[in-house]
Amino acid sequence: MTTHSLSPDILSALEGAVGRNGLTADTAGMAKYLGDWAGDYRGGALAVLRPGSVADVQALMRLCCELGLGVIPQGGNTGLVSGAIDTNDASLVVVSLERLNTIRRIDPDNFTLEADAGCVLQTIKDASEAEDCLFPLALGAQGSCQIGGNAATNAGGVNVLRYGMARDLILGLEVVLADGELWNGFSGLRKNNSGYDLKQLFIGSEGTLGIITGVEVKLFPKPARVETAYLGLASFEAAVALFNRARRACSDLISAFEIIGSECIELARLIEPGMTAPVAASVQVLIELSSGPNIDLNGLLAGFLTDAMEDGLVIDAVLAASGAQARAFWSIREGLVEGQAKRGYHVRTDLSVRISDIPALIERARRFVATEHPGWIALAYGHAGDGNIHFNVLPPLDLPEAEARARGAEVTAGLYDIAVSLGGSISAEHGIGRSRRREFWDGLSPAHRRMVAALKTALDPKGLMNPGCLLPSMETLP
Amino acid sequence: MTTHSLSPDILSALEGAVGRNGLTADTAGMAKYLGDWAGDYRGGALAVLRPGSVADVQALMRLCCELGLGVIPQGGNTGLVSGAIDTNDASLVVVSLERLNTIRRIDPDNFTLEADAGCVLQTIKDASEAEDCLFPLALGAQGSCQIGGNAATNAGGVNVLRYGMARDLILGLEVVLADGELWNGFSGLRKNNSGYDLKQLFIGSEGTLGIITGVEVKLFPKPARVETAYLGLASFEAAVALFNRARRACSDLISAFEIIGSECIELARLIEPGMTAPVAASVQVLIELSSGPNIDLNGLLAGFLTDAMEDGLVIDAVLAASGAQARAFWSIREGLVEGQAKRGYHVRTDLSVRISDIPALIERARRFVATEHPGWIALAYGHAGDGNIHFNVLPPLDLPEAEARARGAEVTAGLYDIAVSLGGSISAEHGIGRSRRREFWDGLSPAHRRMVAALKTALDPKGLMNPGCLLPSMETLP
Repeated sequence: MTTHSLSPDILSALEGAVGRNGLTADTAGMAKYLGDWAGDYRGGALAVLRPGSVADVQALMRLCCELGLGVIPQGGNTGLVSGAIDTNDASLVVVSLERLNTIRRIDPDNFTLEADAGCVLQTIKDASEAEDCLFPLALGAQGSCQIGGNAATNAGGVNVLRYGMARDLILGLEVVLADGELWNGFSGLRKNNSGYDLKQLFIGSEGTLGIITGVEVKLFPKPARVETAYLGLASFEAAVALFNRARRACSDLISAFEIIGSECIELARLIEPGMTAPVAASVQVLIELSSGPNIDLNGLLAGFLTDAMEDGLVIDAVLAASGAQARAFWSIREGLVEGQAKRGYHVRTDLSVRISDIPALIERARRFVATEHPGWIALAYGHAGDGNIHFNVLPPLDLPEAEARARGAEVTAGLYDIAVSLGGSISAEHGIGRSRRREFWDGLSPAHRRMVAALKTALDPKGLMNPGCLLPSMETLP
Repeated sequence: MTTHSLSPDILSALEGAVGRNGLTADTAGMAKYLGDWAGDYRGGALAVLRPGSVADVQALMRLCCELGLGVIPQGGNTGLVSGAIDTNDASLVVVSLERLNTIRRIDPDNFTLEADAGCVLQTIKDASEAEDCLFPLALGAQGSCQIGGNAATNAGGVNVLRYGMARDLILGLEVVLADGELWNGFSGLRKNNSGYDLKQLFIGSEGTLGIITGVEVKLFPKPARVETAYLGLASFEAAVALFNRARRACSDLISAFEIIGSECIELARLIEPGMTAPVAASVQVLIELSSGPNIDLNGLLAGFLTDAMEDGLVIDAVLAASGAQARAFWSIREGLVEGQAKRGYHVRTDLSVRISDIPALIERARRFVATEHPGWIALAYGHAGDGNIHFNVLPPLDLPEAEARARGAEVTAGLYDIAVSLGGSISAEHGIGRSRRREFWDGLSPAHRRMVAALKTALDPKGLMNPGCLLPSMETLP
């Protein structure tokens, strides 16, 4: 890593923009902003800036624009693709939105909420619940991630099936552009078909086009009833068939449909040693329905499962008898992620294919790992209703980390090839960041690349916004 | 209107691109492409081109790019804002997609459908239904409008409340860019979070950034049950309160919530003279729920209405006892639009506000018409669940059309002012086109205008795509 530093003059100008409390340039103070939540990446920066107002963000972007200083916008730092960590040359400044953390307005009559970008997702969920509303974005990182980061990365999670990605939940954005100009795209309107929908550009752009400073989201009625069941099936084919049947039988009330290969359960035991899955089958499904108060949701789910068992599609099923049991089912699903983290370095993917191609994806990926990387442990689980499989691979326990990382890159490349050969995506929900940038860019058609380059150049002509993330350097753009 | 014409050389080059059957330059042959469905606008063109393949569209755009010839992409010509009719100087060529009308693929297992841009919406709806699926976009013009036009204009309609606008229903687009390059953005994936979501740019861009040649959409299970009721209420305030209560009580199963001011009923009688509304109240609501087969939807709606009547929110209610009765309720709603068309020229708006501001919008608009334009008849109806009110105004019957049109422009301006004063939009679903361009552009912030201009310049640097629509001329862009 090249060493860079800022001159005292520049540091003092930056301090002028964000105030004394808003600037950190010493190693110890910067440390927490330079490593990600999952512990996968560490990087460097010239300084960490923590603006205390939207006007501060504007002042600082004006200054960076004048100085030609590159900027990494940073939320809760819970991303998984090094989108907010500069692992390359450390010549950028990090702009953390954490001090912009106020909920500006909740309007339960219109089912809308406006918040600063730095509001933690859980805070927004809690505030919505206090008004008997639901903000449905649900992620493992929800206690740390920020709504601005959720918007910038188009976050997904376990309720996408019912409520959509972050993109589908956002009504408006407020953005400081690369030149420091403020764009206010809040409206409160459900429907506004007036020209280019500019907010769509910034959603999922991973900080490469501007800094999101405020987010306006849709709320929903808080479901009065939730029913959860844990199922055992014989195959992933059966799981796909079951999902399609559930879509028809359960109306639009399915809020989650997660599949878990039974090999994952051992991993969850790393977190909770006494944990056993409620069923023993090789493919397990966690299904959740939710609705308002006046629907016999329990009867709906029970009837659906009875039919599916009679037809042999489901081998075994446990319908949660209480909220506590439902939470226990979810803790198995969440334990997988925590269990992987406990194992240290591992290959983490976020593939998507057509739903009907899920069995082929898993079968080919397992065969690839078994034949090309014997000793590595393949895990398949994910949001089956979205076609999104996290096919992760753990290195053998005795393999030194450096070797595991080198080999892991090959494993990842092989898995990407399999997804692409099925017409799938290498990033269903985690985004591209720095860690998938090359594979992403290599996979684009020339026409697609030229359009991406044209948009980037149009909105950030100096290439100051999150350089190194998502796109190759400005000089090499087509 | 200035008179222009194409040289024989250019005509022959264009014919080379689209074939002899694909070019019309005589007045009679062009007539049907130069007037809109509603009969509001007539325009001119140098020629009408009807490409028979995506390759034809590319060849023709390459040629137009070389010649600097402006192009109007045209679907079913059912838009209401002169987006596909050049009422200005007739120096453009119209590119009709009508010959690209094949459904390319239906995949009921994945609930997706791929179609050429020129496929008529009703054809897509019928093909989906044949697979026991639903494509939920539902518009008065569905027998004529084309899916490419629906995408380009981000069409709305009566089921937006449940299923969203066209934007929410589109999984992928195929687009011929301004330079003739083809961008294939089909994927079949439900979830793909890989960089800028380019399709979002073209959705709602009204042909100003490229020509959409193919559309990939989401399908849904065809609802097995639909329940419809026609309600009488005392006020628009009561209608808003009822909607919020319905959201909570009826889960996410509301597929339509239309409000109709009783003054509109007389208009529907122009279409069906014997028609009477099922209720006599001053504010009428058409509510529809839909679901899968295993929900007691009739009981859900009946219970909800009983409670609302006991609380005095609903004065009178008729729950449709048959499909025929439900269709009769809908024919009242549809009759409003046809009745207005029968009356000839009238002021047509498409306003949206926060749902809680609907009563204020209607009250202020009625007061404005009564005091400033006595003798004009104000009609309020719309998609209340989206905050979208079509507040239309009919001129006095004895007013000559030229005078009515002149005065109508003032009426429109006054109504726009009222919507804007409430933080609303002048185009909830119809788009901007040519007829709302000035008001739209005047209402944008400088930052917004600069971004729109930057995008347009990035993707259509020569300004060939639908000049005059949505944006001011390239020379005057900021």
